[in-house]
Amino acid sequence: MSDAQPRVGIVMGSDSDWPTMQAAAEALTEFDIAYEADVVSAHRMPTEMLDYGRRAHERGLEVIIAGAGGAAHLPGMLAAVTPLPVIGVPVPLRHLDGMDSLLSIVQMPAGVPVATVSIGNARNAGLLAARILAAGDPELTSAMLRFQETLADTARAKGAAVRDATQSR
Amino acid sequence: MSDAQPRVGIVMGSDSDWPTMQAAAEALTEFDIAYEADVVSAHRMPTEMLDYGRRAHERGLEVIIAGAGGAAHLPGMLAAVTPLPVIGVPVPLRHLDGMDSLLSIVQMPAGVPVATVSIGNARNAGLLAARILAAGDPELTSAMLRFQETLADTARAKGAAVRDATQSR
Amino acid sequence: MSDAQPRVGIVMGSDSDWPTMQAAAEALTEFDIAYEADVVSAHRMPTEMLDYGRRAHERGLEVIIAGAGGAAHLPGMLAAVTPLPVIGVPVPLRHLDGMDSLLSIVQMPAGVPVATVSIGNARNAGLLAARILAAGDPELTSAMLRFQETLADTARAKGAAVRDATQSR
Amino acid sequence: MSDAQPRVGIVMGSDSDWPTMQAAAEALTEFDIAYEADVVSAHRMPTEMLDYGRRAHERGLEVIIAGAGGAAHLPGMLAAVTPLPVIGVPVPLRHLDGMDSLLSIVQMPAGVPVATVSIGNARNAGLLAARILAAGDPELTSAMLRFQETLADTARAKGAAVRDATQSR
Amino acid sequence: MSDAQPRVGIVMGSDSDWPTMQAAAEALTEFDIAYEADVVSAHRMPTEMLDYGRRAHERGLEVIIAGAGGAAHLPGMLAAVTPLPVIGVPVPLRHLDGMDSLLSIVQMPAGVPVATVSIGNARNAGLLAARILAAGDPELTSAMLRFQETLADTARAKGAAVRDATQSR
Amino acid sequence: MSDAQPRVGIVMGSDSDWPTMQAAAEALTEFDIAYEADVVSAHRMPTEMLDYGRRAHERGLEVIIAGAGGAAHLPGMLAAVTPLPVIGVPVPLRHLDGMDSLLSIVQMPAGVPVATVSIGNARNAGLLAARILAAGDPELTSAMLRFQETLADTARAKGAAVRDATQSR
Amino acid sequence: MSDAQPRVGIVMGSDSDWPTMQAAAEALTEFDIAYEADVVSAHRMPTEMLDYGRRAHERGLEVIIAGAGGAAHLPGMLAAVTPLPVIGVPVPLRHLDGMDSLLSIVQMPAGVPVATVSIGNARNAGLLAARILAAGDPELTSAMLRFQETLADTARAKGAAVRDATQSR
Amino acid sequence: MSDAQPRVGIVMGSDSDWPTMQAAAEALTEFDIAYEADVVSAHRMPTEMLDYGRRAHERGLEVIIAGAGGAAHLPGMLAAVTPLPVIGVPVPLRHLDGMDSLLSIVQMPAGVPVATVSIGNARNAGLLAARILAAGDPELTSAMLRFQETLADTARAKGAAVRDATQSR
Repeated sequence: MSDAQPRVGIVMGSDSDWPTMQAAAEALTEFDIAYEADVVSAHRMPTEMLDYGRRAHERGLEVIIAGAGGAAHLPGMLAAVTPLPVIGVPVPLRHLDGMDSLLSIVQMPAGVPVATVSIGNARNAGLLAARILAAGDPELTSAMLRFQETLADTARAKGAAVRDATQSR
Repeated sequence: MSDAQPRVGIVMGSDSDWPTMQAAAEALTEFDIAYEADVVSAHRMPTEMLDYGRRAHERGLEVIIAGAGGAAHLPGMLAAVTPLPVIGVPVPLRHLDGMDSLLSIVQMPAGVPVATVSIGNARNAGLLAARILAAGDPELTSAMLRFQETLADTARAKGAAVRDATQSR
Repeated sequence: MSDAQPRVGIVMGSDSDWPTMQAAAEALTEFDIAYEADVVSAHRMPTEMLDYGRRAHERGLEVIIAGAGGAAHLPGMLAAVTPLPVIGVPVPLRHLDGMDSLLSIVQMPAGVPVATVSIGNARNAGLLAARILAAGDPELTSAMLRFQETLADTARAKGAAVRDATQSR
Repeated sequence: MSDAQPRVGIVMGSDSDWPTMQAAAEALTEFDIAYEADVVSAHRMPTEMLDYGRRAHERGLEVIIAGAGGAAHLPGMLAAVTPLPVIGVPVPLRHLDGMDSLLSIVQMPAGVPVATVSIGNARNAGLLAARILAAGDPELTSAMLRFQETLADTARAKGAAVRDATQSR
Repeated sequence: MSDAQPRVGIVMGSDSDWPTMQAAAEALTEFDIAYEADVVSAHRMPTEMLDYGRRAHERGLEVIIAGAGGAAHLPGMLAAVTPLPVIGVPVPLRHLDGMDSLLSIVQMPAGVPVATVSIGNARNAGLLAARILAAGDPELTSAMLRFQETLADTARAKGAAVRDATQSR
Repeated sequence: MSDAQPRVGIVMGSDSDWPTMQAAAEALTEFDIAYEADVVSAHRMPTEMLDYGRRAHERGLEVIIAGAGGAAHLPGMLAAVTPLPVIGVPVPLRHLDGMDSLLSIVQMPAGVPVATVSIGNARNAGLLAARILAAGDPELTSAMLRFQETLADTARAKGAAVRDATQSR
Repeated sequence: MSDAQPRVGIVMGSDSDWPTMQAAAEALTEFDIAYEADVVSAHRMPTEMLDYGRRAHERGLEVIIAGAGGAAHLPGMLAAVTPLPVIGVPVPLRHLDGMDSLLSIVQMPAGVPVATVSIGNARNAGLLAARILAAGDPELTSAMLRFQETLADTARAKGAAVRDATQSR
Repeated sequence: MSDAQPRVGIVMGSDSDWPTMQAAAEALTEFDIAYEADVVSAHRMPTEMLDYGRRAHERGLEVIIAGAGGAAHLPGMLAAVTPLPVIGVPVPLRHLDGMDSLLSIVQMPAGVPVATVSIGNARNAGLLAARILAAGDPELTSAMLRFQETLADTARAKGAAVRDATQSR
């Protein structure tokens, strides 16, 4: 994380979510987007959690990424108190394969949206934040287009590998 | 609701949950337990929601019953700020038959329990509150035992009806 | 829809999705955000669908909202060709209550995120688009904060209704 | 377990459930609440199971915690014969990840509630019992409030760890 | 129901299950097998329920058919106290389409089997009882073979209807 | 159905499946592909069902379409005895929304494939049969390409309708 | 397996199911019930499978136990051609935890019942067969009652172990 | 893969799917059917993916086999642009056991069918392609019939193994 003013806040309910969530941080770093990361538990420090959400846009944050598992309330509660877009990452726990996390995050009532990404896929949360910030930023838009071209190049290289594997038979 | 000091607080995210939740009130009335009912939305009035939870035991409440649907965060968020037992009622919405409500309520992390009852079954929430208050109250315990005997009597009467129906063939 | 340059594109696979999707348009209208709406079927007009996605940011769109049901490929395919944030609305079909739509939209692979909202909840898609556009726009941010205060006011009024209903007993 | 008169009975269908269920005992010990633990199988010793439930409140128990897996009938059957609050812990078995245990415990019919906690989360069952006993006990209420403050402190410390991890990059 | 000594006992938790369960009675009547029907609620009259199960084989019953919904404990509890084969019918309730009923009945632990049939399919429970009684009874075996031939005849007639419908186009 | 030698056999377990299955017949008619339709029940006339499957390719059939619901065994059993491609249509029954039908049809073991289409979507079964027959038939391939262009045209027209609806506001 | 005339046929789709299914054989051996075991694949040898089912009661078998996984058709297809009671064991495969096997076996249409036991629980299939054979056999009934008393004794001993474990603290 | 003109194209979203998908190639090799294999990602190289689909029948391919996982869009998108039959293989990812992959592939809208096989079962995709090509090819039909006889022989041998295992006891 650079010293720049963070534009994205990455929060999670416990440091045990960090191995999952750091992929969001890495994606943001690839796009040179400054971020901060913290533990903000909806169930264990609810007052500070609401404070975090309420003050986020005043502190200069533009997007919040929140990861949580099981009865995952963090993304939705933050979305209730911030005007910023909140991205939810369903963290899979030991049972139910993340289905409880997904439904607890995505099934928000009308009025309070959470932008939900796939189970355990914090990298996509970081990339979604980058897209949000890129809207209206030609440089970041170009970077995103280059990134997408890279995805294509990698996929093409993988195709060559599979073609070789089957050719040699 | 009598004028007595409420011992149970029944809360829900919207008045559209009231047709489901009033069965809790009715059960408490059967046991002469004073209650209050209110809308306390986790997502639409989070500060007041936390205040409600935080002050509940100071105001004399002994149990909280909270109903919510979809990404149902109300019971868990109240449980995070009150030392009281919180009973969660999964309210079924238009899709998924209440499975999202159930998982969002019951799958709470270690440290913050919610006493969950069956989908849409606010009556059982009221009866569970009565059992909780009956612990250490011989009179209420007797009332609960009488209630259970009534259940048995009703079931026996239903048996007679079925036996008659099959006898007459 | 005003004559202004649309900032949000609302697309769907069929006009049968419009009754669900127009709630997104209504939410945008509440925030005075210009939008366009169209049918862009991933399965029935794939070339035009890709063209739509590829040209969206060049045409001045800043967010895409895509609704689809069943094996719902539209949001993900658009996300593959646009640098813009894509919001996916799982439209429930006759069977499976939208669970297939949800999983087909949210479970995107690393690299290509879709911001998924709750099943059938196009209103939240519109509100999420408004939040995305509000990031860095003080006026829109204020409007969003006012909107959230309105949600609280409405919830408070509902509480009064429930309190009255129980008081009068 | 101290020599004190047990206030909570922890029961399970088999000693193979003990590794899961002992977390309930540990939670009670943290709050100096005396408990007893036993195997009371609904399917293998039904008469003694009903006797246990029927006599529980006469023996001075105030809460029953029952863990069971699969077609989990123990919590519900005990709730049928005791006026005490019964807390059910869905124990996950080798298949279905505890979903069968959860539904078999939580989906009780009107009249016979079971206070269900999350899958495999016996610690929460112990904490819920403590909350139930704390209702009307200022000392135990204070202990619960201190415990909740501890949860917050721990969460705050974890936040520091995550902030450090991201700072040093 | 004839005056003959009943060989099959059909029981259910409530008379509201009778519209589902009477299809079992009708199937038995087709095979001239005497039965009795009763309400025996596991949760509302547990002692009598166990008595019913324990005495069933002494009273001359040879098979028990038990229908129940939600956290359906009746079939399993009866199986715990009778040496007779117990057939379980998962009765679908208002939510979850009978999946909770099915899992609560079929997922019995080793030692206490319940012969589970399809959701809401009491007719198959009656036919399974007939098969069980037919084992070692040549006359009943012949009746079952004739019944199966009838199924085939009916299916063949339906085929003619479909062939006609398509022919006439 | 024309008098031509049928190339596709449409079979189902009961004539109650015909309202679902006739969409397959209609799709084939659109492509001028001769078919036959019949009731061939795996469970009620198993011998004739196997005969149907075993003789299908000898009678000139090139594809079999089989619809079934619940524990849907017809497509898989036919696939076991015919060398022809078998297309399975999961017919939804009153409970479980076709999920049981889908899994019973699609989850075939290695060696015996069934080409499964979406729940209740017999039209797609007919179209898949047309594609199979089109492989190696330039005329039918052209018809399929024209059909796909029609799908695009229809989708484009729907887009105009949605654009009009939003324009006029 | 003794030399006695087998009364129970245990069949499965592949020898890879034997590790699961042999628990049925062991249960029968405990009750001195003669059995035979064989591979009878619905999908790989359908004609012989139907022959097995059709001839089973003529060869003196009184119950068939059939295990299968995935799109599990063996129990239902045997039930279609035999007048005997067929017990189905859902064998869990690598994916879906046996849920596909369970639904494919239990959700049989009216007319053709399969007595389904819990996922992977072949021991219960053996015990259910013993109960079926015990109906009308006082000696086997006594053995079943003794077996049930043994279950109770074992459960009681486990209770002592748990009580000791908690006592010593 | 021989030098012959490929008749089947096997494609996948990433080379990480190759260990699953090569079973399709092996099945085709057993039937001497020439194939090609490639990575054609719907999300990472959408233009080339559509090109692949659009040109497939012109290049002489007769069947496409496409494997994908999670929000699996490849089979459906290819089906949208080719007149050829497309076989979809749901590749299971780390979470949800392939249920998301299955629903994303099979639940296609009317007009665009995908022939879906069981989760992770690429071998069956290869065999289904062989059946499709065998329709109208007597030699390939004979090969398929011989293959099915081999399946039966193998199953019979497995039966002998199980009979021996139980005999020797």
